[in-house]
Amino acid sequence: MKKILSVALFGALCATAVPAMAQFQKPEDAVKYRQNALFVMAQHFGRLGAMANGKAPFDAKLAQENAAVVEQMAALPWAGFVAGTEGVKSKIKPEAWTEKAKFDQGAEKMRAEVAKLAVASKAGNLDALKAAFGETAKTCKACHDAYKE
Amino acid sequence: MKKILSVALFGALCATAVPAMAQFQKPEDAVKYRQNALFVMAQHFGRLGAMANGKAPFDAKLAQENAAVVEQMAALPWAGFVAGTEGVKSKIKPEAWTEKAKFDQGAEKMRAEVAKLAVASKAGNLDALKAAFGETAKTCKACHDAYKE
Repeated sequence: MKKILSVALFGALCATAVPAMAQFQKPEDAVKYRQNALFVMAQHFGRLGAMANGKAPFDAKLAQENAAVVEQMAALPWAGFVAGTEGVKSKIKPEAWTEKAKFDQGAEKMRAEVAKLAVASKAGNLDALKAAFGETAKTCKACHDAYKE
Repeated sequence: MKKILSVALFGALCATAVPAMAQFQKPEDAVKYRQNALFVMAQHFGRLGAMANGKAPFDAKLAQENAAVVEQMAALPWAGFVAGTEGVKSKIKPEAWTEKAKFDQGAEKMRAEVAKLAVASKAGNLDALKAAFGETAKTCKACHDAYKE
């Protein structure tokens, strides 16, 4: 009976854990994937920040292009924050795993703000970009403060 | 006269070189950017390869999703292959710089095949995916053989 239960349990765990992890050949790939996707996103987000903070001239076309890439990239990293990667060295705090539902909410909030940022970038004016950039940056900071060393 | 010429030349060089490199704070960021974008792309391309090569079951929805990400990602790395990064350690061969026009043609060819792959993935059948995957993989290999150590 014990054996049957554990087999059933294993099956249930696999049904949730394996499809996600199975996207990656090894846990290190999942960590590298999320880090790389976030770095690429940060490069484009940083260009919007430079405009928003007056460190680069406002260029409506560039702002729109960069915001579009940020929106695309914002969909990706989360697949890499997956069970099985806890043992891989990275800057993630243990709280990201113990508060995974809250972590995931933060990711959703960020994606929602990034979607607004992409819309705002189409308005073609700096004030709209500044406001949306600020709201998005808050969501980055909130999760970095809570879950990144 | 010599000084005037060199100022004019400097201005001309800046007009082509600076806008590209200026996207990145330092040459290392440009190299990391292209490497990271290519890694993210390769993860999604690899999932299509697993289906095309019978190592993973064909899933029409997953194929379409992954091909869409590959198409998005295929637009990005090239900005990182930019003058000013030749001195940064990476796997790039010197030929990539001496044959930059040919290198850029290879990138364009790859993007064209990736666009066809994204269309093929919408057909919802494995044979279409296999054919388009094969053609795209050839373009990856051609540039890796020529320009990657």
